[in-house]
Amino acid sequence: MIADTSSIAGYTIFREEPSDTVPNLSTQHRVHPLDQLSIEEIQLAAKLIKNYASPKDLKFNCLTLREPKKDEYAAFKSGLGPRPERRAFAIVITKGTSQVTEVVVNLESTQVESWKDVTDVAPTLTLEDLDICETVTRADPRVIQACREIGIYDMSKVFIDAWAIGFDHRWGTDRRLQQGIVYYRNSPDDNQYAHPLDFSVVVDTEKAEVLSVDIRLVNGERTKVSLQEHNYLPEFIGSGYQDRLKSIDISQPQGVSFRMDENEISWAGLKMHIGFNYREGIVLSDVRIDDEGRERSLFNRISVVEMVVPYGNPDPPHQRKHAFDVGEYGTGFMTNSLKLGCDCKGAIHYMDAIMAVGSGEAAVVKNAICIHEEDNGLLYKHTDYRDGTVISARDRKLIVSQIITAANYEYCFYHTFLLDGTYKLEVKLTGMLNTYCMHPSETAAPYGTEVAPFINAHNHQHIFSLRVDPEVDGPNNSVLQNDAALSDDPLGSPGNLYGNGFYCKKTPIRNAGGADYCHETGRSWDIINPNSINPVAKKPVAYKILNNNCPTILAKPGSMVEKRAAFTRKALWVTPYKDYELFPAGDYVCQSSGDEGHPHNSTIVDWVSKKEPVENTDIVCYIQFGLTHFPRTEDFPVMPAEPVGVMIRASNFFKRNPALWVPPSIVAVDKTSKNAFAKPEPAESCCGIRDSKL
Amino acid sequence: MIADTSSIAGYTIFREEPSDTVPNLSTQHRVHPLDQLSIEEIQLAAKLIKNYASPKDLKFNCLTLREPKKDEYAAFKSGLGPRPERRAFAIVITKGTSQVTEVVVNLESTQVESWKDVTDVAPTLTLEDLDICETVTRADPRVIQACREIGIYDMSKVFIDAWAIGFDHRWGTDRRLQQGIVYYRNSPDDNQYAHPLDFSVVVDTEKAEVLSVDIRLVNGERTKVSLQEHNYLPEFIGSGYQDRLKSIDISQPQGVSFRMDENEISWAGLKMHIGFNYREGIVLSDVRIDDEGRERSLFNRISVVEMVVPYGNPDPPHQRKHAFDVGEYGTGFMTNSLKLGCDCKGAIHYMDAIMAVGSGEAAVVKNAICIHEEDNGLLYKHTDYRDGTVISARDRKLIVSQIITAANYEYCFYHTFLLDGTYKLEVKLTGMLNTYCMHPSETAAPYGTEVAPFINAHNHQHIFSLRVDPEVDGPNNSVLQNDAALSDDPLGSPGNLYGNGFYCKKTPIRNAGGADYCHETGRSWDIINPNSINPVAKKPVAYKILNNNCPTILAKPGSMVEKRAAFTRKALWVTPYKDYELFPAGDYVCQSSGDEGHPHNSTIVDWVSKKEPVENTDIVCYIQFGLTHFPRTEDFPVMPAEPVGVMIRASNFFKRNPALWVPPSIVAVDKTSKNAFAKPEPAESCCGIRDSKL
Repeated sequence: MIADTSSIAGYTIFREEPSDTVPNLSTQHRVHPLDQLSIEEIQLAAKLIKNYASPKDLKFNCLTLREPKKDEYAAFKSGLGPRPERRAFAIVITKGTSQVTEVVVNLESTQVESWKDVTDVAPTLTLEDLDICETVTRADPRVIQACREIGIYDMSKVFIDAWAIGFDHRWGTDRRLQQGIVYYRNSPDDNQYAHPLDFSVVVDTEKAEVLSVDIRLVNGERTKVSLQEHNYLPEFIGSGYQDRLKSIDISQPQGVSFRMDENEISWAGLKMHIGFNYREGIVLSDVRIDDEGRERSLFNRISVVEMVVPYGNPDPPHQRKHAFDVGEYGTGFMTNSLKLGCDCKGAIHYMDAIMAVGSGEAAVVKNAICIHEEDNGLLYKHTDYRDGTVISARDRKLIVSQIITAANYEYCFYHTFLLDGTYKLEVKLTGMLNTYCMHPSETAAPYGTEVAPFINAHNHQHIFSLRVDPEVDGPNNSVLQNDAALSDDPLGSPGNLYGNGFYCKKTPIRNAGGADYCHETGRSWDIINPNSINPVAKKPVAYKILNNNCPTILAKPGSMVEKRAAFTRKALWVTPYKDYELFPAGDYVCQSSGDEGHPHNSTIVDWVSKKEPVENTDIVCYIQFGLTHFPRTEDFPVMPAEPVGVMIRASNFFKRNPALWVPPSIVAVDKTSKNAFAKPEPAESCCGIRDSKL
Repeated sequence: MIADTSSIAGYTIFREEPSDTVPNLSTQHRVHPLDQLSIEEIQLAAKLIKNYASPKDLKFNCLTLREPKKDEYAAFKSGLGPRPERRAFAIVITKGTSQVTEVVVNLESTQVESWKDVTDVAPTLTLEDLDICETVTRADPRVIQACREIGIYDMSKVFIDAWAIGFDHRWGTDRRLQQGIVYYRNSPDDNQYAHPLDFSVVVDTEKAEVLSVDIRLVNGERTKVSLQEHNYLPEFIGSGYQDRLKSIDISQPQGVSFRMDENEISWAGLKMHIGFNYREGIVLSDVRIDDEGRERSLFNRISVVEMVVPYGNPDPPHQRKHAFDVGEYGTGFMTNSLKLGCDCKGAIHYMDAIMAVGSGEAAVVKNAICIHEEDNGLLYKHTDYRDGTVISARDRKLIVSQIITAANYEYCFYHTFLLDGTYKLEVKLTGMLNTYCMHPSETAAPYGTEVAPFINAHNHQHIFSLRVDPEVDGPNNSVLQNDAALSDDPLGSPGNLYGNGFYCKKTPIRNAGGADYCHETGRSWDIINPNSINPVAKKPVAYKILNNNCPTILAKPGSMVEKRAAFTRKALWVTPYKDYELFPAGDYVCQSSGDEGHPHNSTIVDWVSKKEPVENTDIVCYIQFGLTHFPRTEDFPVMPAEPVGVMIRASNFFKRNPALWVPPSIVAVDKTSKNAFAKPEPAESCCGIRDSKL
């Protein structure tokens, strides 16, 4: 079926042989219902959709798995329903227009089941779309003239980072727009972020034309390009200290501790399915854990469904810089092909990402998902100080990760599980600061930092939205807000004689809505199952959300970015579950206005507006976390990775420490000298159990 | 000089041969002025002090290095002054009394330079003191009777954890007191925290007698001991899952990347001195960093100077449970002897701790300090999405660590440095929950969690105080408070047309005092040197304190624990530097009342009361961080380690990314297909530089 492969937009492309017959997909019945579309499925889906649309000529904006509805999938999982049929979902654009259509095609009946034209929306920018922006900008006479005016005559040295435009009232969503941010390179591998130019462009993606060249004048003057180089590639950097660091080798001679069954993983009692799509990137489903022989469900689905990077410089056109990297570009589309020893160390299992390009051809990013383990230091330790009996065990991480390149920035997403059943999403931010040129009359403060002479890196935030569809011991869950509180009894009263009483005040979230973090009470949230009581603690079983790295958006209420990124107003949103309700900034984030009540583009604000009950029902949590970044000189020319994350951990879910089974790395005890305060030397054997008497 | 060795309180003891001559310490002149006292120095100091006190019989509460005064040491370091003379500091108790005396002895002149009786104070409880509590309690007839009443006849199965008493008005500081918390063990290695008894005792340490047996009656009844076992040692645990985890081997075939010059370490451009004492444990001094050939100072001295674990159950006698593990017991005294592969992996350099026991003999804990490196994942990565040029480098940690056992709990302190000059203190909390028995008529809520049937683990906090004596580019520093703030210009005004403007508002801390954390503004603090301007950013150089895990104490204002632990009222305190002003809860924490103005026991509240200026002068920062712990069933019978920490990182201190020298682990670039959007496969070579053209 696959005739040849080539490369588009960095992907390996699989071309289909011309054929009028429908490929036989009988083998597909063995795939997991949540698996990515295969190359063959993408090829089939594209053919069916093209045939359906003929003679209209289509551009595929996306072509991805249509996940089964939750009830249908749950019925299948429990053995009560049939295997869900494989379906694809596509957003297509009628070529040369802005007409957007949503298509659902059944790959088993080979029928297009739904064809829905949607209006007043702009779908994700693909890498091919971004390429258009750079190509047309570089060739535009006004741009060439703008470059000449500041002494740049070689347009091969001019590079244009294509960005979503934010929202521009001049065009609304009538055209698919991008803004181009313009840089200069002294040489092909020069760091362009050291040479930002003083103008930007607006491009119509579908017409492939520059609509506007916006030149910024300061005191009526152009700003010269700074030609000083600030590089980080070895060809530019001296190598005086190469021997400072000796290698650290990490190996797993017996192999990894996890087992892959196609796209399902089992590790240390945990099981889950690993999916991937163009927009969310990694999707973890059916996360469940072995509890002393009993399989218990934790999460139905986990993924990063949105993020925004609002910049804080109010001078136009910088208000446009607030990239929604998930919704506007796609965490899948931008994902890196990973490499052992560089992105991760140890024994790695890689999974490929399978997506589609504009032609509908299947595109593969090799090694897009990295699955590996890491030592995580002490899991527990205790010494009996009387006789020196000491035991410790080492913790371990299972990490499912991907790294994306969003023009200048890189985001590394590490979905991490620990041996005690903890889930953490750790994100590392690295790559390049977005920079802007400074006119000699300007200062960077207060809205930025001069990270190199005449180079201004603007204040910005990175706020992520982690969507967690919990299934804590079953589908019906609730959320309790936990706040540390002093005893209500006054100091000196019989109930609080010495004034030291404090407790955890638990407030149920009864209706769909958002919640703020509160430092003063050390606020956390329990996802509980009110129908499953921990027999020991005599409380509902819970997984606790710990999220104190959660700045809200720093923009005036009612401002463009504050409306478009309304999901960033709260540290936590809780909604009732709805099929295909996934993206809190809207299904169509590009050029969204943030206005409420859009017929094809509802957001979290719409979802919670009816205040539907969220107690003891199927709920979804959107957890916002991130950081506010006031750039430092240390972040230039390349940023030391800055970590940020959120944790969800068992809280009276298990009857006891769920990692007791982990083999200890030491038991040292000197029975011969067993008396109070005789602390022996640790036993000689280590990383195994010295079993003298034990 | 050393005749034989034996063991007291778990330490290896070095006994001195009887001799009337003063040992020759001429070799001592080569030691670093901040090195721990050597065995010989302790022996000499003890002898000199005993001779001075004779015929009084002394018990050494501590005998430790008297660090040189800052000016004297600074003069020596800069070559302007002589090498400071070696001195010892001792707190001694006249045997059989509560008389406490502070002694300074000059080890070079062999003179006692200061002998100061202090009153109304109670010094640290040593492990020997704790042993007294258990021994006398177990033998006390009232205790034996109290045990019999609940069916316990074998006193060898009764164990008493000795705790500082907190503060008890009945005795004040007239006697050195402890409280004994009583447990039962079914067998020698049984987990006693599964069998807490319903009474406690008060013991006079110096008289070695039980003062009070406090039996708790519920509805007039004793509470039976729960005999159900909840264990974690392998002899009790099934081993069904031993093969779930394959080993992860970490090796450094070329050895470590750091170099030790006695107790001074150099690593990746960082240098510092590593000291240790009975109270603070690890002390890092003279932390400085190579900045492209220039050695720059960062911190004069870093150590954990206090911590408190207040429990939130208001029922007496639990209000007494608020252990100050640094001040009441000593992080040095309680330190573990560490073991490769268990506490840390990789290539380890260990340092011993040298302390003194009550007799004045030198005591050694082998391998008390662990120094090792760890891989820290990505340091930076960037991909040029146009042509696939990708570079990444791996970060690394240098970790100087110790682990202490504080009766039930363990605390693991990891002083961590990263390649970008970041310092982090990471603490892992593990070990055993403090537990209490439940009468059948009781519930654990709201002040605790029933972690096993009839076993109540009380709510508590762990709040640490990290003392940082900064020396950011020199001794004179200031602190700025950073708060993210929206632009002052309204939405729609020319200065903030689109409402997205935000900046970092910087407020200088002008006078000694405390500061709260503020989540809403993402507050941080810059330790700046106003005399050293970053030439690029045009701002004073700074190291930024990031501390958002900083609960304040949960106790009523004016309550006993809130007064005693006054340092926990603020996330940050800033004071002017004073020699020997180290411990924010007082030099003498045991039995402290927390009253202000104590002549021999001032606290942070006293230190800041004069509001002395702290701008552009020699300052000290006390950083409080920690967590509030509502126990979970998962924390029983042994707690999965819970991490918490604080970070101090460069912020416009360097002119550019200070880790640019780190050799990259990959440069992959396919020059042959250099065109927009051609993303090649990564180069085959890895963890080295593939230099086709570069």
